[in-house]
Amino acid sequence: MIARKDDLEPKSGDPLPNSTKVFLPGQIHPDVRVPMREIRLSPTRRTDGSTEENPPVRVYDTSGPWGDPGFEGDVRRGLPALRRSWALARGDVEEYVGRQVTPRDDGYLSETHARAREDARFPLQNEAFSARKPLRASKGHPVSQLWYARQGVITPEMEFIALRENQGVEQLKDSRVPVGDRGSLARQHEGQPFGAAIPRSITPEFVRSEVARGRAIIPANINHPELEPMIIGRNFLVKINANIGNSAVASSIEEEVEKMRWATKWGADTVMDLSTGRNIHATREWILRNSPVPIGTVPIYQALEKVGGKAEELTWEIYRDTLLEQCEQGVDYFTIHAGVLLRYVPLTARRATGIVSRGGSILAKWCLAHHQENFLYTHWDEICEIMAAYDVSFSIGDGLRPGSIADANDEAQFAELRTQGELTQRAWDRGVQVMNEGPGHVPMHMIQENMQKQLEWCQEAPFYTLGPLTTDIAPGYDHITSGIGAAMIGWHGCAMLCYVTPKEHLGLPNKKDVKDGVITYKIAAHAADLAKGHPGAQYRDNALSRARFEFRWEDQFNLSLDPETAREYHDETLPQEGAKTAHFCSMCGPHFCAMKITEDVRKYAAEKGLSEQEALQSGMNEKSHEFLAKGGQVYSGAIKPEA
Amino acid sequence: MIARKDDLEPKSGDPLPNSTKVFLPGQIHPDVRVPMREIRLSPTRRTDGSTEENPPVRVYDTSGPWGDPGFEGDVRRGLPALRRSWALARGDVEEYVGRQVTPRDDGYLSETHARAREDARFPLQNEAFSARKPLRASKGHPVSQLWYARQGVITPEMEFIALRENQGVEQLKDSRVPVGDRGSLARQHEGQPFGAAIPRSITPEFVRSEVARGRAIIPANINHPELEPMIIGRNFLVKINANIGNSAVASSIEEEVEKMRWATKWGADTVMDLSTGRNIHATREWILRNSPVPIGTVPIYQALEKVGGKAEELTWEIYRDTLLEQCEQGVDYFTIHAGVLLRYVPLTARRATGIVSRGGSILAKWCLAHHQENFLYTHWDEICEIMAAYDVSFSIGDGLRPGSIADANDEAQFAELRTQGELTQRAWDRGVQVMNEGPGHVPMHMIQENMQKQLEWCQEAPFYTLGPLTTDIAPGYDHITSGIGAAMIGWHGCAMLCYVTPKEHLGLPNKKDVKDGVITYKIAAHAADLAKGHPGAQYRDNALSRARFEFRWEDQFNLSLDPETAREYHDETLPQEGAKTAHFCSMCGPHFCAMKITEDVRKYAAEKGLSEQEALQSGMNEKSHEFLAKGGQVYSGAIKPEA
Repeated sequence: MIARKDDLEPKSGDPLPNSTKVFLPGQIHPDVRVPMREIRLSPTRRTDGSTEENPPVRVYDTSGPWGDPGFEGDVRRGLPALRRSWALARGDVEEYVGRQVTPRDDGYLSETHARAREDARFPLQNEAFSARKPLRASKGHPVSQLWYARQGVITPEMEFIALRENQGVEQLKDSRVPVGDRGSLARQHEGQPFGAAIPRSITPEFVRSEVARGRAIIPANINHPELEPMIIGRNFLVKINANIGNSAVASSIEEEVEKMRWATKWGADTVMDLSTGRNIHATREWILRNSPVPIGTVPIYQALEKVGGKAEELTWEIYRDTLLEQCEQGVDYFTIHAGVLLRYVPLTARRATGIVSRGGSILAKWCLAHHQENFLYTHWDEICEIMAAYDVSFSIGDGLRPGSIADANDEAQFAELRTQGELTQRAWDRGVQVMNEGPGHVPMHMIQENMQKQLEWCQEAPFYTLGPLTTDIAPGYDHITSGIGAAMIGWHGCAMLCYVTPKEHLGLPNKKDVKDGVITYKIAAHAADLAKGHPGAQYRDNALSRARFEFRWEDQFNLSLDPETAREYHDETLPQEGAKTAHFCSMCGPHFCAMKITEDVRKYAAEKGLSEQEALQSGMNEKSHEFLAKGGQVYSGAIKPEA
Repeated sequence: MIARKDDLEPKSGDPLPNSTKVFLPGQIHPDVRVPMREIRLSPTRRTDGSTEENPPVRVYDTSGPWGDPGFEGDVRRGLPALRRSWALARGDVEEYVGRQVTPRDDGYLSETHARAREDARFPLQNEAFSARKPLRASKGHPVSQLWYARQGVITPEMEFIALRENQGVEQLKDSRVPVGDRGSLARQHEGQPFGAAIPRSITPEFVRSEVARGRAIIPANINHPELEPMIIGRNFLVKINANIGNSAVASSIEEEVEKMRWATKWGADTVMDLSTGRNIHATREWILRNSPVPIGTVPIYQALEKVGGKAEELTWEIYRDTLLEQCEQGVDYFTIHAGVLLRYVPLTARRATGIVSRGGSILAKWCLAHHQENFLYTHWDEICEIMAAYDVSFSIGDGLRPGSIADANDEAQFAELRTQGELTQRAWDRGVQVMNEGPGHVPMHMIQENMQKQLEWCQEAPFYTLGPLTTDIAPGYDHITSGIGAAMIGWHGCAMLCYVTPKEHLGLPNKKDVKDGVITYKIAAHAADLAKGHPGAQYRDNALSRARFEFRWEDQFNLSLDPETAREYHDETLPQEGAKTAHFCSMCGPHFCAMKITEDVRKYAAEKGLSEQEALQSGMNEKSHEFLAKGGQVYSGAIKPEA
């Protein structure tokens, strides 16, 4: 146990400054209450001494009840089961006695081994968690949001999402910020290859239709009633995922739960628990019961623990049992590497970096050891049946993704992607929601091809990529090498971006790394939302830029993705409280502020009556043409231009 | 004086691990010695116990003599005057008695004021620096690299650059790294709008022709003989600039010199000294005499200090005198905001954030105060004559660049860009090298338009952009918001990227911020080089990825842009020395390493004789088609897919 303790770092429960949790009420479903974070702003102080109020800014909030100072929670009790009544009200699920949890589920392969569990510092067993019986489908049809959407039903989840996704749209209409050449911006978006379908306002019916079409998913296991519904699809806000998880080498349950809360505080839309060591089941239980966001896993990791780490000893029975275990616990989406087919494995032999996906390499090893087709592929239909009964979504894995720039977009990668497309269709036929995982390491000029092929071959199912990293030469900074690729593929239509932390390739992320990864990916996702033309996205940029222009330093900090860091950086040079309202900053000093000068310019222009019309009448290009026409003749002097 | 001391931080003089400075000899000019950093690698250890040597990797090196352990330098003496003999040998320059330096040059406007100079901690006056007389053109023609290039002359500077730019090209040919689907990569590049002109190998003649065409510049004032020549143009490696500079509020000369050395240690290709407070002249002198890279300035900043900060009191005479002062000192390029025309200023009144460029706002204020055309525009030809006599390059400023997403690509910005194009042509006519500055804040979907218009309107003169920032909502992380935009515009053809540090909008960067900014921009530039298809760019990625795949941890660290951070992050989880050669890492643990499994897969495949041919013969899509054909009929089970 050598993971660093972060006891001195800020905690996930610390509130963000000047923020209040507000709730938007549902219209169709009155018990829907959609949480938003409302940031209070200070008034604008005009040069004539008058002031003007600035309305608060509402932003999307992934922190769940943990981000609500009014919520008296305890990780040992878990979050309220918000959605359980919604699932029960549909009348198509039943409670039943779930599968017995065994020591092997936590990676203890013998009795002696199992006794070590008792010694774990954090209480692994929790009565509060195990009291609730699992739910499953009872009427012979899937209980997936896809199934309801196809029936024309607008579920509470869909209405919740519509309200959530509309952040900023109404506010942007009322914005006092001059929007400049907005017409030109709209024209720019018309030319976009994939972004044209985003409506000006997100309605519950639009949510339903996108889910029905398979273009978006709502990962929401009926056994994870704690989650606040969210949607993944390219005609919605771009989402980000944060990976956490212990491993045989480091970390503990308590740390992982805090990392989950920490990641969602900063904006993670989903969290994947990639634990691979002991206590996998218990860790996941603690995370699920405390998570307001969907939780994804890679079930083959746990299955492998159950066979002592020997890939060739994996069986369908063990894997199936693991799926059921996790469905009952409430995992919302599974990464399943069913596209790693036996015949694709040799395609990786010529690669610079072979197979770098853990799941992909486990399956490749199994395929070769048995010289049989991947058992996840051959059992796909059974897997679909299980997942349909709990509404677990597929995240079809990309086990052959490139692990280096040299291997990007190669035959192995694209062969698997085609199979992902086939598996997508088969899952849809069985009423299961699907997204597809993508690379990896891809240079910028080869990114768009990934998106195009995925859209085509996987029939527009949501794409979910890891970065991609746009160069291999910066270990220690792979949140940045990949943030570049993530922003670009998000713009092109990728629906969810899996974060990469600065520790990628080097070690397990600590809390600081988790935050750096999340903030970097919030930037990438938001940059993509702006470029895609999501209707409400620019509202927050405008509010922050206006605060900046008006020297409302506190508002600039509070509107930023990371108010604490913004304030801290400012205070390093100008710690005095007065500097928070000063009309200059440390970059330029009191005489020299560009924004102050601009204010003077505006004032002067107003006094002298210099209007825009006057400027336009004078003809912008007149002088230019005049000079160009005169050209060389103007020249006269000691230095001759040409020999 | 509240800037933080960085005394405990590593120093610029600390060598990078496993690195040696080597020199490539010139063929045309035997006194040309091009420095490269050579990184020694450890041998590959095969699973059968045999080893194989890995050749060292050479990388572009901007650190100058400071990065050479064999150089016994002292910032009080400055660097050797490498290029002075080259300038003298051309026989078209003369030494002369330069302009007298006055207290006003350092911002001291009275005698009392000036005496304060003596109290400065760091010795401002330096005999070693002032002994050398300045050079200027003596034969009635420009002494610019552009002028020589047009005469068909390949200067030592050009040969130096050709050798420097060829890094990795020869090595890539010999690389043992499998390059996968390289044919497809080449095809990708064919479709690029602007990248097609990069040759497979950079020759001195290619350098000359690009400079003659105006498509590239070699910023190299004849009075800055300390610099090691470099080139800025879109058919060469993408370059980055680091801004340093004190201001009235913080910093000191000593810190600024160390920041310059620090920035070039990590890879800054040029440095801009943006000082605005006292001791501007002295600070610049110390920086120039110690800088192996071109130094840029914004002369209007110093001119403004000379008139006590009152923009309306600026005159052409004061500005002209400042230009001469800086030409004689050796500044290599000047940012000049001559495109901020009187009639464009009112176009900014509707903006969300007005004018945010310091230079732009000073000129705007001057224009309005006098209701006259910008004196830099009306005196353009005289400015060209001065700069031609010293080979100072233009960096035509973008004083009306957008300061927020809301203002991107608006009329004010593009009006100025058109005028930049006109000024470019006029400077070329007078034999002066030119690049153009660009924005700023631009959402991703509006970036390419900037590059296209600049190429068209400025006739392919190099573009030099600040970022652009792709969103406004992340103060504290603007190295990342802008690194995304920088990588993209670099790919599209931007020749140099001006870094942004995490402190942008908040305060002055300290050494850590400078490093974070430089590394982020090295990532952006390199990602762009890969995407543009620069012939040698991928060599370092391949070498690093191969080291990663073969568990050569030390090599992975040493080949990275920041070896110290990569090692530190690894050691946080696995500090033991043995872990540096272990075939696993802390992410997955000993049982679970994807790369280890891939090795097993390869071994197995070799043993069992599974060849690629076999895989291909089996027909990649056969199974897929079979399953798709069967479709819904396969389904059978308790859960019905459709109602």
